[in-house]
Amino acid sequence: MRNTGERLTYGSYLELDRILNSQTPQSGLSGKPAHDEMFFIIVHQTYELWFKQYLHELNSVIEMFNGNFVDEMNIGISIARLQRVVEIEKLMIEQIKVLETLAPLDFLDFRNFLGTASGFQSVQFREIEHKLGLKHEQREKYNAGDYYADYGAKDQQLVKALQGLPTLFDVIERWLERTPFLDTEGFNFLKSYRASFAKMVQEDRTMIESSPAITESEKQLRLQMIAKTESYFATVLDPESYEVLREQCVLRLSHKACLAALFITLYRDMPILQMPYRLLATLLDVDEYLTLWRYRHALMVLRMVGNKMGTGGSTGNDYLRTTVEKHKVFSDLFNLSTLLISRSQLPTLDAELVKKLGFYYSTL
Amino acid sequence: MRNTGERLTYGSYLELDRILNSQTPQSGLSGKPAHDEMFFIIVHQTYELWFKQYLHELNSVIEMFNGNFVDEMNIGISIARLQRVVEIEKLMIEQIKVLETLAPLDFLDFRNFLGTASGFQSVQFREIEHKLGLKHEQREKYNAGDYYADYGAKDQQLVKALQGLPTLFDVIERWLERTPFLDTEGFNFLKSYRASFAKMVQEDRTMIESSPAITESEKQLRLQMIAKTESYFATVLDPESYEVLREQCVLRLSHKACLAALFITLYRDMPILQMPYRLLATLLDVDEYLTLWRYRHALMVLRMVGNKMGTGGSTGNDYLRTTVEKHKVFSDLFNLSTLLISRSQLPTLDAELVKKLGFYYSTL
Amino acid sequence: MRNTGERLTYGSYLELDRILNSQTPQSGLSGKPAHDEMFFIIVHQTYELWFKQYLHELNSVIEMFNGNFVDEMNIGISIARLQRVVEIEKLMIEQIKVLETLAPLDFLDFRNFLGTASGFQSVQFREIEHKLGLKHEQREKYNAGDYYADYGAKDQQLVKALQGLPTLFDVIERWLERTPFLDTEGFNFLKSYRASFAKMVQEDRTMIESSPAITESEKQLRLQMIAKTESYFATVLDPESYEVLREQCVLRLSHKACLAALFITLYRDMPILQMPYRLLATLLDVDEYLTLWRYRHALMVLRMVGNKMGTGGSTGNDYLRTTVEKHKVFSDLFNLSTLLISRSQLPTLDAELVKKLGFYYSTL
Amino acid sequence: MRNTGERLTYGSYLELDRILNSQTPQSGLSGKPAHDEMFFIIVHQTYELWFKQYLHELNSVIEMFNGNFVDEMNIGISIARLQRVVEIEKLMIEQIKVLETLAPLDFLDFRNFLGTASGFQSVQFREIEHKLGLKHEQREKYNAGDYYADYGAKDQQLVKALQGLPTLFDVIERWLERTPFLDTEGFNFLKSYRASFAKMVQEDRTMIESSPAITESEKQLRLQMIAKTESYFATVLDPESYEVLREQCVLRLSHKACLAALFITLYRDMPILQMPYRLLATLLDVDEYLTLWRYRHALMVLRMVGNKMGTGGSTGNDYLRTTVEKHKVFSDLFNLSTLLISRSQLPTLDAELVKKLGFYYSTL
Repeated sequence: MRNTGERLTYGSYLELDRILNSQTPQSGLSGKPAHDEMFFIIVHQTYELWFKQYLHELNSVIEMFNGNFVDEMNIGISIARLQRVVEIEKLMIEQIKVLETLAPLDFLDFRNFLGTASGFQSVQFREIEHKLGLKHEQREKYNAGDYYADYGAKDQQLVKALQGLPTLFDVIERWLERTPFLDTEGFNFLKSYRASFAKMVQEDRTMIESSPAITESEKQLRLQMIAKTESYFATVLDPESYEVLREQCVLRLSHKACLAALFITLYRDMPILQMPYRLLATLLDVDEYLTLWRYRHALMVLRMVGNKMGTGGSTGNDYLRTTVEKHKVFSDLFNLSTLLISRSQLPTLDAELVKKLGFYYSTL
Repeated sequence: MRNTGERLTYGSYLELDRILNSQTPQSGLSGKPAHDEMFFIIVHQTYELWFKQYLHELNSVIEMFNGNFVDEMNIGISIARLQRVVEIEKLMIEQIKVLETLAPLDFLDFRNFLGTASGFQSVQFREIEHKLGLKHEQREKYNAGDYYADYGAKDQQLVKALQGLPTLFDVIERWLERTPFLDTEGFNFLKSYRASFAKMVQEDRTMIESSPAITESEKQLRLQMIAKTESYFATVLDPESYEVLREQCVLRLSHKACLAALFITLYRDMPILQMPYRLLATLLDVDEYLTLWRYRHALMVLRMVGNKMGTGGSTGNDYLRTTVEKHKVFSDLFNLSTLLISRSQLPTLDAELVKKLGFYYSTL
Repeated sequence: MRNTGERLTYGSYLELDRILNSQTPQSGLSGKPAHDEMFFIIVHQTYELWFKQYLHELNSVIEMFNGNFVDEMNIGISIARLQRVVEIEKLMIEQIKVLETLAPLDFLDFRNFLGTASGFQSVQFREIEHKLGLKHEQREKYNAGDYYADYGAKDQQLVKALQGLPTLFDVIERWLERTPFLDTEGFNFLKSYRASFAKMVQEDRTMIESSPAITESEKQLRLQMIAKTESYFATVLDPESYEVLREQCVLRLSHKACLAALFITLYRDMPILQMPYRLLATLLDVDEYLTLWRYRHALMVLRMVGNKMGTGGSTGNDYLRTTVEKHKVFSDLFNLSTLLISRSQLPTLDAELVKKLGFYYSTL
Repeated sequence: MRNTGERLTYGSYLELDRILNSQTPQSGLSGKPAHDEMFFIIVHQTYELWFKQYLHELNSVIEMFNGNFVDEMNIGISIARLQRVVEIEKLMIEQIKVLETLAPLDFLDFRNFLGTASGFQSVQFREIEHKLGLKHEQREKYNAGDYYADYGAKDQQLVKALQGLPTLFDVIERWLERTPFLDTEGFNFLKSYRASFAKMVQEDRTMIESSPAITESEKQLRLQMIAKTESYFATVLDPESYEVLREQCVLRLSHKACLAALFITLYRDMPILQMPYRLLATLLDVDEYLTLWRYRHALMVLRMVGNKMGTGGSTGNDYLRTTVEKHKVFSDLFNLSTLLISRSQLPTLDAELVKKLGFYYSTL
């Protein structure tokens, strides 16, 4: 409600006169009212409202992290806001169950009235993808690569203007790069981790080779697995070979940021790392639930329209199916699991570092 | 989008210029913007959009059942629409999980700006309650019984106008009353059911009394249980004593409708009763999930504001807690379970009736 | 509880002495107890219990449909049991959220103790896949194609013995093939449907070609879409070209069964088709939620172990990802959507057939 | 699997020979097999398995908090384990949806075979209630107050032995009581908070009294609300009157613990309080979702058996309904919301305290 000086009521506060009078089924306008078109409109309107909220949270977190310093108070606030984003994503997934009450045959009753209007034209969804960190080059092509063809002039402008803006991926990467602790006087994480890993691999090899209970062919298989893991660690822990993978777009985080994320994951129980660890875990959730939504959405579209082209001339299901994996943003964080070694084999932190990673309020 | 002749786009179809520009946080207008007020607004707007859809389905079902005859084709359609209502209710419940990401302390940042606006003023929610069949007299009182005090003039009119309109409860009751089969030439359901029940009770009694494995005190307990059940059946199966309970508002369905619902529930596998049974089961779901939403809502309000009075001067949690059970509409259908006897003890239908309750397409 | 004559208690009925004493964390046996191994065991045990129930329902439905005649009473019962299967699948999906509380680092604390034990060895899950109708040839290969290598001798036998048994796909296909109504004296569904489709396509073409509002390039795009649809319909509606697709494993249902499923979907509101339609819709749900579970499961495994080989020497995520789509059973029913035309353009049924598809209890 | 030296397989690891062979439908033993009894058994067995896991987490958290000192590393671990408990509770709630696929009529097919076995006899559920902190005196009575009558001798002993054991409530209360910061040289929380509250109330009063837009009757209502809040604060903030409420069992936490919880909630964004705040929020979740499960369970029982006495001679629904609210443990934490004042009106912390509540790793 605009500030009119009138007394605020539930209806005026929520501007329900506008919200509840913005559903105009096209089938009705055309004299062939289809009962389910109202449902189709409202489902999509609620999605767009949630997208607005999603962006409200996302933008506020980017802002808090954008710059050369993040106030520690903002870590807790950011986690809370990203956890809300995750809850919104879960709701978006549940909402597909509701949408699936629209039978394909009932959809056909008004589908023709939609013309070329299509979900691809959601500017807010493009913005979400961009603000999370999806790069333009990473996007699956459609419309023969003319990404903007679907949009009207004003929306084209909006979508194009996104390119220059900071993204969650960027600000998190820079925050990770600033993590202290990884190379202190008494402790070099990279060096120690390499050593621990080498020791672990050596022990595994010895155990396998000396085990009487394992058949020869399985022995070979297991040794191959170890060799693979060894090669993976060597590539990822070395800054130069890491950079090659990055240029090939296999990895995306900078080496420094990647090591910091690994450090936080491994020593997550240290008091000072407990919240940063939760932040990383929440980013994984954000990515995972959006991926799940994409997949569920693709499956629903398949069930609804089969393999026909979707509204808006897009091939629908095929495009959607491809974006499920391709549009992930934080896959480097998923990859971290490959780099973990068991806690019992972790490098021991020196006393000085342990102290830095703790709290000492009682003695201050 | 109004029919302007312009080409339909996703944005114009969904009227996103209105939908996405109808959020005006009051805290912002007052110069103390609270981040979470946007969330509070959008959560409630999506609820109102779902209420609109809920009513769209509910009204269409009432219309299909209103009158002296229901086209059999509409049974399937009605079930599908009520199942959508159930899915909407489930989503409404999930949405509370999202709402709970609003911490009480953050709510306080903008709560004062809401003045006396309150969820009690939702006209659509009142309409849902009424259209389901909640009677005005059945409502929990608030505002010292002045039910309309909270509403502005226009909304008061809307809420009052609901009183004369047909409800789901009414039309379902009349449809049940028209069920054939309960008193045919060869079969009187009420009489047969009473007889079967009496036989069952007699057998149970004999079994208990002659069982050596049961202690005396447990025997007494079990016999008491049987006596209670017997008395309950006697009351409910007799039209006159049933009517007394109805006048006391313990029961609400007419005796005829109640017996029909019982018959459908017991012989639900007969081909012709399979869909009516699903209709009754779906009505139970509609009632149950709305009840669950009410309860969950009350619990959330308690967590959010504690025992303070809610916005709008209502005592919030207490009122909400009371309506959870009190505003149920189809509790008679829940009570049916008390009246069931085991399938192995059911009256046998005569051959003529079995034929009537089957399909014979293959031989037509 | 075995029938011992003792008085039944909650604990003896549920055999809790066995159920609750069958968790033996290997890490504990090895003197390095890992807190989370108990969780890992219990999660998988509950999955296996649900698999047992899943099979209990699935087998009972196959049995009811196996043969040359299905009692109409069993349609309702089968739907109810398959809906329970769907609810179990939904729970299986929710359970992954619980499983994801196991952090990758904590999993490493006991992972080595699992040796080559692996989820691939779940005999019950193989049985579910088979009983739904997954054909042995359709399966994604692993272990270099030696499908049985992972199993012990007894389990190998169990898995191999599945091959000869009837599947849900088979019995449903035969039931569909027996559908009357598709070729009656006054109505030939295939012929009429082809005609209606041709008429619709012609109208669409005329509309597009004569529309002044559409650009030339879009016109071409739309006409191409129509041509594609036309060719798809021609192929699928013709028994011979259909058979070619079937031999290529693009389609699987027999042509007769496919047409019957299409007929039921299009005329689902006719009283006699309401339950068969619900059965088909439930089969879609069964397939869709199992697919969703597979996808979610694959994503969870990726998050847990990254790209490392899984326990049991399998490549984990890659294999799982492939089965998501490949192991679908009822994809022909999903494809039906491609074949639907709008209700307003459907062939009209003749009066005789309408009568056959209705109920006439009131006049019997 | 017991450590037999044999190679571990999926089946032997999970002891599936026991898990999957512990379902003995009583109806089958009696020669009248009821299809759904298997389902009834498996639903309850999975519940008991989850109860075991619930206790596994709960006991580990109690152990970490039991004593005079909690290692800060354990805060993060405890939160993670309690969040798993919350996820288990959510799954328990979802599982009721599965259970509701058991129609009341189908339940009757085997209900008689259950004799007096009853869910009340679940020892593990009693243990969960106790370990959370439910006091024996607080329990709703049944069986005419003979709480142990239902249990066999062995189970009676188990349930009675719970009385002496530490509970989550106890150890959390003691941990809260040890919170430093509430009374430092430069800052007395209780005193400052009282002052801030008094100032806020005074401002509110002035605003209401001087507002021309509010009607007289509303003014009175609002002033009454303020007076109520004032009186509530006075009672709760004063140690002596607080103690009276505690003796009346209206409140349960010690005054010191209550103030600490309030302090943590109000200053939750201070770096050192971010994790303690999350711990409190998780305890609220644990309590809330168990409450929701109880409610949902009661509703399901009502739907299943109506108002008949439950198996085991209990009155089922009535008892269950009463425990929903009565058996809550952390209701004091819910009440905290009533005590919050808006952030803009909070007492300012002095610089020394702010420093204590922050991290200083960069300068150490």
